[in-house]
Amino acid sequence: MDYRRRQVQVRSLLSGAKLDALLVTHLPNVRYLCGFTGSAGALLVTKKQPVFFTDGRYTAQAQEEVKGARIVIAAKAPLTTLAEWLGSQKAVTRSLKLTGFEADRLSFAGHRSLARSLPPGIRLRSTPGLVETIRMRKDGDELERMRAAALLGAGLFDRAREVIRPGVKETVVAAEMEYAASKAGAEGMSFPTIIASGQRSALPHGRASLQPIPADGFVVCDFGVILAGYCSDMTRTVYVGHPSEEARSAYSAVREAQQAGIEAVRPGAKLGEVDAAARKVLQRHKLAKYFTHSTGHGVGLEIHEAPRVAANQEDELRPGMVITIEPGVYLPDKWGIRIEDMVAVTETGCEILTPTTKELIVC
Amino acid sequence: MDYRRRQVQVRSLLSGAKLDALLVTHLPNVRYLCGFTGSAGALLVTKKQPVFFTDGRYTAQAQEEVKGARIVIAAKAPLTTLAEWLGSQKAVTRSLKLTGFEADRLSFAGHRSLARSLPPGIRLRSTPGLVETIRMRKDGDELERMRAAALLGAGLFDRAREVIRPGVKETVVAAEMEYAASKAGAEGMSFPTIIASGQRSALPHGRASLQPIPADGFVVCDFGVILAGYCSDMTRTVYVGHPSEEARSAYSAVREAQQAGIEAVRPGAKLGEVDAAARKVLQRHKLAKYFTHSTGHGVGLEIHEAPRVAANQEDELRPGMVITIEPGVYLPDKWGIRIEDMVAVTETGCEILTPTTKELIVC
Repeated sequence: MDYRRRQVQVRSLLSGAKLDALLVTHLPNVRYLCGFTGSAGALLVTKKQPVFFTDGRYTAQAQEEVKGARIVIAAKAPLTTLAEWLGSQKAVTRSLKLTGFEADRLSFAGHRSLARSLPPGIRLRSTPGLVETIRMRKDGDELERMRAAALLGAGLFDRAREVIRPGVKETVVAAEMEYAASKAGAEGMSFPTIIASGQRSALPHGRASLQPIPADGFVVCDFGVILAGYCSDMTRTVYVGHPSEEARSAYSAVREAQQAGIEAVRPGAKLGEVDAAARKVLQRHKLAKYFTHSTGHGVGLEIHEAPRVAANQEDELRPGMVITIEPGVYLPDKWGIRIEDMVAVTETGCEILTPTTKELIVC
Repeated sequence: MDYRRRQVQVRSLLSGAKLDALLVTHLPNVRYLCGFTGSAGALLVTKKQPVFFTDGRYTAQAQEEVKGARIVIAAKAPLTTLAEWLGSQKAVTRSLKLTGFEADRLSFAGHRSLARSLPPGIRLRSTPGLVETIRMRKDGDELERMRAAALLGAGLFDRAREVIRPGVKETVVAAEMEYAASKAGAEGMSFPTIIASGQRSALPHGRASLQPIPADGFVVCDFGVILAGYCSDMTRTVYVGHPSEEARSAYSAVREAQQAGIEAVRPGAKLGEVDAAARKVLQRHKLAKYFTHSTGHGVGLEIHEAPRVAANQEDELRPGMVITIEPGVYLPDKWGIRIEDMVAVTETGCEILTPTTKELIVC
């Protein structure tokens, strides 16, 4: 991972925002900028070398992981250590008149305590989302990891197909998939596995429950793994039993909508256009009112990150962005269907990272 | 769960703090007070009936889960919905001059946006930790769930003992334990499973890695499950191979320290005294300098919650508190040992929730 290049990118944002430094407290952003994967740390990006702060539990780990930054360790919370360190570094302090902080990633109490403990002369300014803007466009190393995560994740669907049958509890399907993930080397699941069968398939967030899979109905399987820090995310909906014509035709409509979404993904397209492309297909099939969420989201070090693929989003797709395309329809107390792939925006269109068939699978 | 009793407890804290209402944004606190388990929601506790805010994804779930509160749903973020709802409820707004908020659980940006959107006349005051204070003392329903979680969690150690042998990867041990947890009905693990073998056992946070278990050395196993919302947490350290006299005697010292910690647990004892009781034993064995963390923490809906069992903590134990007692010693690049039980404070002493033997197990 080219941490130094990323640090340079932040520095150029600093100049644009007239900031002397950025205090990074959101741990995925800290990891992105210097490689630290522990649970307590903060990074101060200045115009010179960044400084990383953590506590004594992470001495060995910080020395091994942190790249391109000076490391400061004390037996205190990282922001307390930062304030005390700045107090001892007059030259640094003088150069940091205006320091941005991640206002959406630092609690009100954390900000207050920091503001009180900083040396006089340093002003804090709310600058949410700066690092997230850089993180939206994945570099080559990241795309490689995301391809690997998507492939490993897709393998779990094979396990799900083996296990799904009437009478098997949803939690058992999830457990088998998660076990397969661990054995294949995943660090964990990127979110609680959704296995939503029968009428529960109509719940967009139907986390696996103790309900046995009914003899007839859709089963929505939405799942992902974390591999080398990066998240995968995919959904397939299978049918257990004998799908009616209505069920088959709704499935086809969602599949067509998902395909239309993917075809709208190219550099320069607006995010809202991608959402509209999928929604329009469902309108034609008179199913749009059952598509109750947005079409997708960015994915990377976090399972949900920028950008949002939603109605009226004016921001444009750029090469390197990795997003999900996941339209669905949910008929309350009846059924639900969702199909989701991860796609990476390329120079000319997009690369679908999820390799799994979207044919209707009947179990 | 007796949500109404808990709501009454918050109301009596409001009077004490001269607040007209408390805005609860930390989701475990929301769950504790009204039963909602989803990922987006806020609860406004006033002197009358509490009001719960969520978005359209959670309509069915909120109606099923939320107890003792009015439910307000809109297609917006819960705090936006709250502000708009207050704008439409003049009588309520007039009664809420001073409203507490969870300053350690709301971001700086979230607070700013809320403060700008609230109707005029409502002042926000930082009141961190109010609900956490109530949550420290578990009621009968909670203790029942925690006993069940501790028992289910302890069962995983049997699986670990079957799997641990030289050459098996730490991640495989963790995967087998997590699979057993899922099959036994756990909702998930309460934190990433720690399996730290050989020299890695000296890392207090040695999350399972791809390292194969060496032919000779300690293996620290620290793990927990979530069952019906409540977390379990326990640690056992086994020895693979032939422990030296030094290893056996260090193990005995940690076991003795852990026992001393448990024996210090009773209503009225200061948290710092419990920490000191464990630490003193390790001092006697000349191992105290290798005990680099605190003795324990509260556990419940969250894996780490109040109170802290640490040096110089003056707060007193009260019946219903559930804490961990987990001294450990860590000799860098050599070995580490930790033994951890969950204990509930009773009227006269404590109940050990973790049923597992603390004899040194040699695999």
